[in-house]
Amino acid sequence: MTTKLRVEGMTCGHCVGAVTRALERVRGVERATVSLEQGEAVVEGAADPAALVAAVEDEGYRARPA
Amino acid sequence: MTTKLRVEGMTCGHCVGAVTRALERVRGVERATVSLEQGEAVVEGAADPAALVAAVEDEGYRARPA
Repeated sequence: MTTKLRVEGMTCGHCVGAVTRALERVRGVERATVSLEQGEAVVEGAADPAALVAAVEDEGYRARPA
Repeated sequence: MTTKLRVEGMTCGHCVGAVTRALERVRGVERATVSLEQGEAVVEGAADPAALVAAVEDEGYRARPA
């Protein structure tokens, strides 16, 4: 299962790292791939999309299912 | 002794953290205070200014004594 999120507010590679780590901590996530240029995260695994959004927003970014 | 640096390329709080930690690892540094808004670092301690510049540039930012 793959979930795609729009992520707004990332400005640099540190932001990408923070969002990636936050997503990878969510239960069910197997892998998270985050693109700064596309403002997007692709998450593999059986995770609750609402939990993914919440994890990204807790890091200070805006997120929504894409 | 206080050294002031101009730092270019920081875009977010993660950048500020990375620059701060890099400066604090330089021999002689007692404290580093980094401003995103001002693009500036103020370093306290008897550190070699060239080593401070190098530490910041190793993190991927541009730096020069202010």
